[in-house]
Amino acid sequence: MTRVAIIGAGPSGLAQLRAFQSAGKKGAAIPELVCFEKQSDWGGLWNYTWRTGVDEFGEPVHGSMYRYLWSNGPKECLEFADYSFEEHFGRPIPSYPPRAVLHDYIMGRVEKSDVRKFVRFSTVVRWIDFDEKTQLFTVTVKDLKKDELYSETFDYVVVASGHFSTPNVPHFPGIEVFPGRVLHAHDFRDANEFVGKNLLVVGSSYSAEDIASQCYKYGAKSITFSYRSKPLNFDWPECFTVKPLLTKLTGKTAHFKDGSEAVVDAVLLCTGYLHHFPFLADNLRLRTNNRLYPAGLYKGIFWQDNPKLIYLGMQDQYFTFNMFDAQAWYARDVILGRIKLPPAAERQADIDHWRAIEEKLETAFDGIDFQTEYMRDLIPATDYPMFDLDKVAALFKEWEEDKVKSIMGYRDNSYVSIMTGNKAPPHHTKWMEALDDSFDAFQNRPEAAAE
Amino acid sequence: MTRVAIIGAGPSGLAQLRAFQSAGKKGAAIPELVCFEKQSDWGGLWNYTWRTGVDEFGEPVHGSMYRYLWSNGPKECLEFADYSFEEHFGRPIPSYPPRAVLHDYIMGRVEKSDVRKFVRFSTVVRWIDFDEKTQLFTVTVKDLKKDELYSETFDYVVVASGHFSTPNVPHFPGIEVFPGRVLHAHDFRDANEFVGKNLLVVGSSYSAEDIASQCYKYGAKSITFSYRSKPLNFDWPECFTVKPLLTKLTGKTAHFKDGSEAVVDAVLLCTGYLHHFPFLADNLRLRTNNRLYPAGLYKGIFWQDNPKLIYLGMQDQYFTFNMFDAQAWYARDVILGRIKLPPAAERQADIDHWRAIEEKLETAFDGIDFQTEYMRDLIPATDYPMFDLDKVAALFKEWEEDKVKSIMGYRDNSYVSIMTGNKAPPHHTKWMEALDDSFDAFQNRPEAAAE
Repeated sequence: MTRVAIIGAGPSGLAQLRAFQSAGKKGAAIPELVCFEKQSDWGGLWNYTWRTGVDEFGEPVHGSMYRYLWSNGPKECLEFADYSFEEHFGRPIPSYPPRAVLHDYIMGRVEKSDVRKFVRFSTVVRWIDFDEKTQLFTVTVKDLKKDELYSETFDYVVVASGHFSTPNVPHFPGIEVFPGRVLHAHDFRDANEFVGKNLLVVGSSYSAEDIASQCYKYGAKSITFSYRSKPLNFDWPECFTVKPLLTKLTGKTAHFKDGSEAVVDAVLLCTGYLHHFPFLADNLRLRTNNRLYPAGLYKGIFWQDNPKLIYLGMQDQYFTFNMFDAQAWYARDVILGRIKLPPAAERQADIDHWRAIEEKLETAFDGIDFQTEYMRDLIPATDYPMFDLDKVAALFKEWEEDKVKSIMGYRDNSYVSIMTGNKAPPHHTKWMEALDDSFDAFQNRPEAAAE
Repeated sequence: MTRVAIIGAGPSGLAQLRAFQSAGKKGAAIPELVCFEKQSDWGGLWNYTWRTGVDEFGEPVHGSMYRYLWSNGPKECLEFADYSFEEHFGRPIPSYPPRAVLHDYIMGRVEKSDVRKFVRFSTVVRWIDFDEKTQLFTVTVKDLKKDELYSETFDYVVVASGHFSTPNVPHFPGIEVFPGRVLHAHDFRDANEFVGKNLLVVGSSYSAEDIASQCYKYGAKSITFSYRSKPLNFDWPECFTVKPLLTKLTGKTAHFKDGSEAVVDAVLLCTGYLHHFPFLADNLRLRTNNRLYPAGLYKGIFWQDNPKLIYLGMQDQYFTFNMFDAQAWYARDVILGRIKLPPAAERQADIDHWRAIEEKLETAFDGIDFQTEYMRDLIPATDYPMFDLDKVAALFKEWEEDKVKSIMGYRDNSYVSIMTGNKAPPHHTKWMEALDDSFDAFQNRPEAAAE
């Protein structure tokens, strides 16, 4: 029987399990599935942990999730095409839910799907190699609870271990003697630590934007952003300052490229993540920066040199959950023989075609359109429900504009679900005032929660 | 030619290099040595890094060293028998040097020994296994800078990767929603972060004692210790409280086993370290807690099931640098064929003999005497210079008593070098007032440093 190893039970790995379960329900014979998950529960990044550094078994902590995180994009953009928010919650909910609510939604679909039996929890993948003779992968894992290694062979390997877990941490002169806390976004957990503090936030991507906003919301005294190439051009509150690149630190003073200075109490490095696969032999290992079309992956999924090796969700992302679905359904159909992969040269030409376009992208809107076309390329090849991709693209653009209008207020907007056509209700509390991010506080009106 | 792989270029790995270099200088033919070091420089824990969590290559950070650390035991107890402090510094120095000074001393010996050529820096060991047929170890490493894996075979493997790098981090109910910083001692770097804060320090070993003392010295508002089995019975300053085990946290309130409470701003888990060897096959991997005689190691060094696998420094330690030397010299002489290992049964009887004694140890003084006997067992078998072990044991006991007399003042004492017979001068500044821990500040009188 064909055996498929899935590395990771986060959104991508779960999409793969769900894809097979969906085919099975419709009568297909599905392969033997084994999903290896390092954490003790599924959910990947959405499975919040208080731990930082290494976990209770000495393995690097997967989670980069922090407390009080709310979706930073409309939930209407990430809705599963086969399982709407309305189906899960029984009614429309606001457009920007907090972590616990999104977690509940992602988990809801798989819990109903009876796929938990395929997951081996607290099991970390140590090593994968491929035997040309047998055409099989040997996957060596460690059962962390039993403290034992073992190996099994598989016909396919699906790498769904994510790429927001291994921080990219640059050095700045003087950071080694900065008299206060220095941390990467990966280790950020609770904004309360920074109440009344002057924070230096290095970076200008989503982590910088969101962590700075959150620290402001919970009471940081000031935020100084430092950017390398592109400032975070939003209408920030008065206690925010935007500076060019940090050149050095002397004591608590940060020095910037334009000669200006700021005295800060803590340094938050929101400097991105590395694609990190310490368990893969060099000839199987994806090496890429975070971009919309990593090289070497046919359809953004299949390792060109050995397409039995499958990568999910390794792209920079506008689309998220439903893109992992589109990829997982496609990968499933290749494994099931429903889609026949073209020969290597043809695959390479397809990769080159997409890369040539990707390399010419300039604006965020270009990127949104590109990933929308990528979705349009994948979905019709499988039975994953097609949905109005142009509407999603338009919504991404509306969201970008809403952020420009009000970076602290954009989460108070509501949008129409592309899947159900129903408009989200406004949340009962403005985001800036919603300090309780719990499932119950979000789902109930405040007075109901207090009863 | 015989090939020896040494894992780690910290105090133990460097002792092994030095042992071979010393034999070579005296005319012995020495095997081919390859020392793999994950960090970009040697020194192990003594090589301070500002990084926490994972390093710039995504590998778990080795260092647990923090800023402003001063030796917590007399330097006279850890002095190399073949390279005194006086030889290195040209004159006697005070008994409790700060990190930079100890680092300079350790490095001084190996820098003079021309052993750097044996070390491959920025190279992490991914996997080691042993082939029964060829009787060789295959060591697979990653060159972190080149981002490439490669394998080589060796006759012997010396594991000198330490056991104070992988934190043991227990969970306490409520810690996952504690509104402030939670960290393990492994991630502690700069006490300035905790100025004016109320700290909960969980644990009662050296890390707890020293980090708490240091935070007090630099301005923490209060320290609350929590112990599982044995309180830190010292004459603590007034802002210290000693509590039994933490049972839970509710908000910022810590609850203890005796029903008492304390409101705290940060939680420091000084809860020890794990022996962690993710690069070793199960049949080669030492599994032990931190104790004076780990099971399965003949002479505390040789893996009983395969004595070509050598472990250095895996014991709980009173003796440190000179014990690593004693072990490394012994291991060297076994590899050189100067010492012939007895058959397995005889080795096992020896292990059992030591373990039986170790299991009956009760007090710290018992432990000191035990490790002194262990040293006395090792040193005469090699040409490592014997020194007056009883005097070292007596000094350890004096040190324990000095700590009881004054936990904040014991570092102001001076002792006589066992190697040179000269007494250490007092330091120019009391430890509690010595906020500058730099090499220059320590070596010069304050007025000289200010000139």
